[in-house]
Amino acid sequence: MTIPQQKTDLELQMARLAKAARAAGRAVAKAGSAVRTAAIRSMAEQVRARAAVVLAANARDVDAATASGTSGAMLDRLKLDPARLEKMARALDEVAGLPDPVGEVVKMWRRPNGLQVGRQRIPLGVIAMIFESRPNVTTDAAALCLKAGNAVILRGGSEAFQTNTELARCVDFALAGVGLPSAAVQLMPTTDRAALVALLRCEDDVDLVIPRGGEGLIRFVAETSRIPVIKHYKGVCHIFVEASADQAAALAICHNAKVPKPGVCNAVETILVQRAIAAEFVPRLAAHLRADGVELRGDAESVRLAPAGAVKLASEDDWSAEYLDLIVAVRVVGDLDEAIAHIERYGSLHTESILTRDYALARRFIDEVDSSTVMVNASTRFADGNELGLGAEIGISTTKLHAYGPMGIEELTTTKFVVYGDGQIRRG
Amino acid sequence: MTIPQQKTDLELQMARLAKAARAAGRAVAKAGSAVRTAAIRSMAEQVRARAAVVLAANARDVDAATASGTSGAMLDRLKLDPARLEKMARALDEVAGLPDPVGEVVKMWRRPNGLQVGRQRIPLGVIAMIFESRPNVTTDAAALCLKAGNAVILRGGSEAFQTNTELARCVDFALAGVGLPSAAVQLMPTTDRAALVALLRCEDDVDLVIPRGGEGLIRFVAETSRIPVIKHYKGVCHIFVEASADQAAALAICHNAKVPKPGVCNAVETILVQRAIAAEFVPRLAAHLRADGVELRGDAESVRLAPAGAVKLASEDDWSAEYLDLIVAVRVVGDLDEAIAHIERYGSLHTESILTRDYALARRFIDEVDSSTVMVNASTRFADGNELGLGAEIGISTTKLHAYGPMGIEELTTTKFVVYGDGQIRRG
Repeated sequence: MTIPQQKTDLELQMARLAKAARAAGRAVAKAGSAVRTAAIRSMAEQVRARAAVVLAANARDVDAATASGTSGAMLDRLKLDPARLEKMARALDEVAGLPDPVGEVVKMWRRPNGLQVGRQRIPLGVIAMIFESRPNVTTDAAALCLKAGNAVILRGGSEAFQTNTELARCVDFALAGVGLPSAAVQLMPTTDRAALVALLRCEDDVDLVIPRGGEGLIRFVAETSRIPVIKHYKGVCHIFVEASADQAAALAICHNAKVPKPGVCNAVETILVQRAIAAEFVPRLAAHLRADGVELRGDAESVRLAPAGAVKLASEDDWSAEYLDLIVAVRVVGDLDEAIAHIERYGSLHTESILTRDYALARRFIDEVDSSTVMVNASTRFADGNELGLGAEIGISTTKLHAYGPMGIEELTTTKFVVYGDGQIRRG
Repeated sequence: MTIPQQKTDLELQMARLAKAARAAGRAVAKAGSAVRTAAIRSMAEQVRARAAVVLAANARDVDAATASGTSGAMLDRLKLDPARLEKMARALDEVAGLPDPVGEVVKMWRRPNGLQVGRQRIPLGVIAMIFESRPNVTTDAAALCLKAGNAVILRGGSEAFQTNTELARCVDFALAGVGLPSAAVQLMPTTDRAALVALLRCEDDVDLVIPRGGEGLIRFVAETSRIPVIKHYKGVCHIFVEASADQAAALAICHNAKVPKPGVCNAVETILVQRAIAAEFVPRLAAHLRADGVELRGDAESVRLAPAGAVKLASEDDWSAEYLDLIVAVRVVGDLDEAIAHIERYGSLHTESILTRDYALARRFIDEVDSSTVMVNASTRFADGNELGLGAEIGISTTKLHAYGPMGIEELTTTKFVVYGDGQIRRG
């Protein structure tokens, strides 16, 4: 006889939390579009009305983080001020205004026997968002999941716990105001790793886990979870400057893809330059980027083509590095095939862009590169749910199942088959 | 210092097999539609040309299975004859003739800045099919995965190993004939559990696992795999005979959903009858089904309404049973809400059908039941990729991520974002 392993209190607590989310998810789905939208609008109002309380909680988080020696960039991500809070509220209003994806009949056709068959969009059910310091993810994720008819479990970073608790209170008031169960949006009561592990085992009551943050957190979630995980580890994005490219436009795009926001996943990390124009373009690129403080690391050929010292010699590791900083790798390649081979070997399936005036090469790049976003003559920075027109973004996926690339609210739904008959029976 | 665990020979062998599949998958994707279609047509020709060899291998499998005491239904699933083999070949021709899903631009729109953004269908990559005794899955799965531009790893049941080996040889000849790598379709060289476990850990080189067979196999795969799994455990399908239903049509549909093929997952297992018509309909239903040897198990009310002995008293377990046999459960419910509550509690998210003449109730059933296939006035037996018009079926999913319901070749693809620009850079 095997004795089932005793569940710990924490495991029982997480199982209850997940079960409550499951029941709340059903209520959210049934409540209908108007109620869900009203809840999100009310969340925006609550964030504005309770701004002082939220900012005070945030100040306590920031003080504690400062005291424990948290660095500048991380502290900046954590910190809220009235302008940032207003931006969060406005983002909620925008989500409220998006078209409701639930109930849409994506496709419908008729069978020879008269059956009318369609695919109708329904909520996924319960989504767990695991994220780090940015408190705006709390309200963004709550709104997006709710809009798509789901319940959500939020697990933010420990350094933002007091802020997130106050934001969750805003959400709670909003839910109560429209008669939705408070379990529709639940903040995990602890940021313990053990609690996270227990949550990731609730595969019967949670349908999808979306981790956002550093590679370490994401790997931990992917390896621990029994629930499907949609994730991207890093963005090693490439721009291939093909020989026929408009070089002035290419300089502007390379600059745009790195300089204004070097720390984001859709920033370019490696620029591939076709040999035919390398002697002219590499020095221009080096001058253009170095003027704004970008460090260039190149293969021997680009080092040689640039003025002495303008391009440092890259190591093998540079080709797969996600710098998240004012650094970019540069490599000279012979042709499109070599560029694609480099991307296939070192890329992260995130975003790649070809700069070209050649019709056939543009078509080949689009077809042959299988990254989640493939572009012609555009900055990699457009790889973003808002910029691509999804209305919002809940995350980016570089794995192919269910969603690939930026995910909007449609990716928080699935479709069921609906079949309208007149008494049909199956022959054979 | 941690010493990495030594891999066993079997683990290394499976890792090599998966890596070969990954490379072959790229070749299949690049080969283009005409080559993939030619390979599938050639598979059909090879199956016809090598029929004698395949049937001889199958006879050896059947002999061994008989000797080890395999039961009638399982033996029947294993057994091939010239007619069944011709059916398999014809199924291959049909898959060859399906429209190619790869490259389709599912949607395309234009952004205010002039960027043209679309979602273009691409292959998933590498798919592992884990299945039991039916040898036709070998050729079906090979053709469907190939058609959608993927490589596939096949792991059939040990009892069909010789048959599958000969079928794999047919596939191999076909691949060679069109210049595709033989690793595009690989049969696992062993049906060892340990080899399966090793394969299910190759998460870097396999994108999706589809297990088909008994609940035990599927649970094992789901619990062991590090690769995403799309599955359904069982089909506990419901028909709700609402008070306004055309009773003659309802009898025909209930009969069709159980009698001709009781052993399939889309057969009805529980019939819910609305109280208002139960006194009339339950006895008619019992008579109609018992005439063809169906055993009825009902709640106390239906037992009482039917002639003595016509309906046996059901136990609690009957409501969640997948009989796969000439047995059906019957329950009297008060109204639509009670029917939906029963389905929510005992159903398997497979297929449910309401029989009604009431417009509003039909609409509510479609919207409120969240099973993967929801029907009005049709037999549950239509829950099938071919019957619904997908052209073919690789499996059925009752989990909501990526695919929900019958899966055709589109579900063996994903979409990437394609972006056509004219030099756009992102502001802000």
